[in-house]
Amino acid sequence: MKNLKLAAMETPTRTIVNVAGVEVGKDLVVIAGPCSVESEEQTLATARAVREAGADLLRGGAFKPRTSPYSFQGLGLRGLKILEQARKETGLPIVTEVIDPRDVSWVAEFADVLQIGTRNMQNFALLKEVGQAKKPVLLKRGMYSTLEEWLNCAEYILSEGNPDVILCERGIRTFESYTRNTLDLSAVPAIKELTHLPIIIDPTHSTGRVSLIGSMSLAAVAAGADGLIIEVHNNPAAALCDADQALTPEMFSEDMRKIRALKQFFETLS
Amino acid sequence: MKNLKLAAMETPTRTIVNVAGVEVGKDLVVIAGPCSVESEEQTLATARAVREAGADLLRGGAFKPRTSPYSFQGLGLRGLKILEQARKETGLPIVTEVIDPRDVSWVAEFADVLQIGTRNMQNFALLKEVGQAKKPVLLKRGMYSTLEEWLNCAEYILSEGNPDVILCERGIRTFESYTRNTLDLSAVPAIKELTHLPIIIDPTHSTGRVSLIGSMSLAAVAAGADGLIIEVHNNPAAALCDADQALTPEMFSEDMRKIRALKQFFETLS
Amino acid sequence: MKNLKLAAMETPTRTIVNVAGVEVGKDLVVIAGPCSVESEEQTLATARAVREAGADLLRGGAFKPRTSPYSFQGLGLRGLKILEQARKETGLPIVTEVIDPRDVSWVAEFADVLQIGTRNMQNFALLKEVGQAKKPVLLKRGMYSTLEEWLNCAEYILSEGNPDVILCERGIRTFESYTRNTLDLSAVPAIKELTHLPIIIDPTHSTGRVSLIGSMSLAAVAAGADGLIIEVHNNPAAALCDADQALTPEMFSEDMRKIRALKQFFETLS
Amino acid sequence: MKNLKLAAMETPTRTIVNVAGVEVGKDLVVIAGPCSVESEEQTLATARAVREAGADLLRGGAFKPRTSPYSFQGLGLRGLKILEQARKETGLPIVTEVIDPRDVSWVAEFADVLQIGTRNMQNFALLKEVGQAKKPVLLKRGMYSTLEEWLNCAEYILSEGNPDVILCERGIRTFESYTRNTLDLSAVPAIKELTHLPIIIDPTHSTGRVSLIGSMSLAAVAAGADGLIIEVHNNPAAALCDADQALTPEMFSEDMRKIRALKQFFETLS
Repeated sequence: MKNLKLAAMETPTRTIVNVAGVEVGKDLVVIAGPCSVESEEQTLATARAVREAGADLLRGGAFKPRTSPYSFQGLGLRGLKILEQARKETGLPIVTEVIDPRDVSWVAEFADVLQIGTRNMQNFALLKEVGQAKKPVLLKRGMYSTLEEWLNCAEYILSEGNPDVILCERGIRTFESYTRNTLDLSAVPAIKELTHLPIIIDPTHSTGRVSLIGSMSLAAVAAGADGLIIEVHNNPAAALCDADQALTPEMFSEDMRKIRALKQFFETLS
Repeated sequence: MKNLKLAAMETPTRTIVNVAGVEVGKDLVVIAGPCSVESEEQTLATARAVREAGADLLRGGAFKPRTSPYSFQGLGLRGLKILEQARKETGLPIVTEVIDPRDVSWVAEFADVLQIGTRNMQNFALLKEVGQAKKPVLLKRGMYSTLEEWLNCAEYILSEGNPDVILCERGIRTFESYTRNTLDLSAVPAIKELTHLPIIIDPTHSTGRVSLIGSMSLAAVAAGADGLIIEVHNNPAAALCDADQALTPEMFSEDMRKIRALKQFFETLS
Repeated sequence: MKNLKLAAMETPTRTIVNVAGVEVGKDLVVIAGPCSVESEEQTLATARAVREAGADLLRGGAFKPRTSPYSFQGLGLRGLKILEQARKETGLPIVTEVIDPRDVSWVAEFADVLQIGTRNMQNFALLKEVGQAKKPVLLKRGMYSTLEEWLNCAEYILSEGNPDVILCERGIRTFESYTRNTLDLSAVPAIKELTHLPIIIDPTHSTGRVSLIGSMSLAAVAAGADGLIIEVHNNPAAALCDADQALTPEMFSEDMRKIRALKQFFETLS
Repeated sequence: MKNLKLAAMETPTRTIVNVAGVEVGKDLVVIAGPCSVESEEQTLATARAVREAGADLLRGGAFKPRTSPYSFQGLGLRGLKILEQARKETGLPIVTEVIDPRDVSWVAEFADVLQIGTRNMQNFALLKEVGQAKKPVLLKRGMYSTLEEWLNCAEYILSEGNPDVILCERGIRTFESYTRNTLDLSAVPAIKELTHLPIIIDPTHSTGRVSLIGSMSLAAVAAGADGLIIEVHNNPAAALCDADQALTPEMFSEDMRKIRALKQFFETLS
């Protein structure tokens, strides 16, 4: 991959990103939670449920990049405070999206991991800003981007001095319309041969269908992914966004049982 | 899916396609062998090796649909006779492609499974002809086709009276160029909720890279695929086509060990 | 473009395909008519109308490649006889699709141009058969195919001895859903620098919207296309296929007036 | 198109965006200039040449969104000052890209039109900021975005109080690799039936080939585009970016002659 320096495989050892004690790139890490923080009650109930089921980190959006300006845009600071409370109560570190370079420094006060969304993968001003933050970054692949472009975006962050980048494949845009996007699972072994950075899979936004999330989570683990990020909502039918694709806590718990068992199987497979 | 009658899920039970005793849709079935039949020696050596490693069926092309008219087009009848000999020696049933409706009846004398390639998925004259054959059909997804179009092609075959259709996802065409195509593994659970027909995965043509085939085979099993079709060549460097993507017998054997172990794991997972 | 011999630009002069006196590649040629031949009345009424409006050739399908086996598949031989009658009455040469290699020799008795549809672009058995026919071939681009693959399919026909190939860009498959496909008009100047074969544009199947056909026809002429193929139906609302995208004779007549004027403008522009 | 309010066609009259006297949406407007501002000499020489050839506005990037962090990123403020000087000397209003919401207010002091690039189409923080600027905005379509998503981004700007949005189609990402992207010219009549905003075409970034730009410019005019944005460099071979796709002043001048003649033709065609 031309132009890559810090992200390239030449670097001797695989990166392990330490998120408040959770080691991404070493253990199989599961990030779960609602699409957006809607209320204290919804966030805390979901946070408790996903911790109970074995999630390692809590996700939740306080700033939502939405197709329409008239859609719910997130609770902002209020949402971050709710996430802080959820961390206090459950002990789960927080993954939350940042969409404006002006917000990075203060959002980083609340977040354990700063998420860059698919629409902002090549928002270079934002990449440079999170590259200067002292927090790990979850960099989603652009729904239209090649592996080479994606790794160059990681390079933007690394070259600013932040070594803690977690890649996240979340589906690319194709002609297929049965699924929301097309999950490119071959990106997992491909990324592993191109870079030392960890890669996780988002089975929720890629498939956009509750019924496909369980299978794709298992497939991701079998493909060698370092983790998963899954949308869970304590009451999906009432969700303000992505109501069709959030798992209930029960579904998530059942999936976690299988994910853990599969992970154990692979640990014993030599 | 509109227009589907025979292929639709309404049909009560899942189809099991019996290929000379191998039950596709019940057991995990692995089809392996060279891209094309090049010689008796190459085919027999490869056939022995894949049987040894545990393959259930032997693949090999006697008629090759090639981008250029000046590329090797396959050995034709001579190739089929070599496959016949390989079956005699190894006991492995034969999967081979047919590309001309005029050839279906006599190719069916040699083949245990008639393969329809990705470029012929919507070759309706060919579909109708294999629909009248008395042999199972392996229907590859068009590299440009939606699940709905694919299932309608299965419907063409079923509606001519042939119930034995095996679907095969082999990658769709996208903007990504690191891989040859993009393997759409979410098609596995999607197809399972749309139809009763079995679905297998082709990790070779989808990724086009030897280094990705092992991971994608395991991911396919985890996603719930009914089988795999993998290119193996006794001497990939000398192959007349697809030299870059064929596994050696050693690589295949090692992958088979993991595939079997993973399959056993899933049998015990409730 | 690798592998190209006969189709490549090295050949000194541009090909002009003579269709019963109409010179494709020299004049701007307009092919018009219904998607499918439905009845004598419909075909003759439409044929008269498009001749009146200035069309050079009549299109109409007797064999229809349809997504579902339960959709109208064309009138077959009866449809060809109706086209023959339309030619007798209007003098317009006939363009009609062939989808089965077994039909090529006898369909060629009726057709002035044999059309290969987008789904059959890489149906190599069919390409070889029309390569041996003594009639010009209209080769549509696969909705999923690169320029290189398309020209290799032309090479298949040329290498069998038939020099009369007309290329037709009809839209490629993308993520955009407002239009049926995405018309790739840059293929016109690209093809002109890669090959000596003429290229025409299909604004109907590419856009799939009546309201866009007029603009795209003018754009095609401005891009340097050698012709257009446009669906016209004497009563679109009653059409058995493609009812949403066929022009009425009045619309077509109005478009033809502008197309001719634009063509004259370009003849004077030096 | 759901969710559209201000951008939707319901609004009675077509928007005309007045850029320092140039009326986009009324006259055919040609924007020309280098990809990036590299030096005073290069920018002034190119500016003089494009004004001479009849361009209406001058383009030039001071902030360049580049795939790699190690590529030339633009001259920043120094680039803007050079553009200011070019405007003073040639009288051509300036179109320049802004990529960081923190820069909008001060870049707007130099720019006559603020450009939002394809990678930032859904950079909502940036859209809101230019929505509050008092300068017209040129909103490029995301290379991965549907018409609906694009118009919703225009809606973001309009809903912040800025009515002066010019849309720019610049090619979408497909599987075709002969061209850099695939120019979707059908977007021109499609956009005209969906919104009252003007739309221009970028034949440079869409095709990525000097040899295709002339034809695509004429095709864009024939399709009904309100203008063109074309890369011109006084010495393309020495350009710091996009060297392969910039026209020389001579080529541009020759294209302008044809574009003007074609425009006049359409003014007389009723």
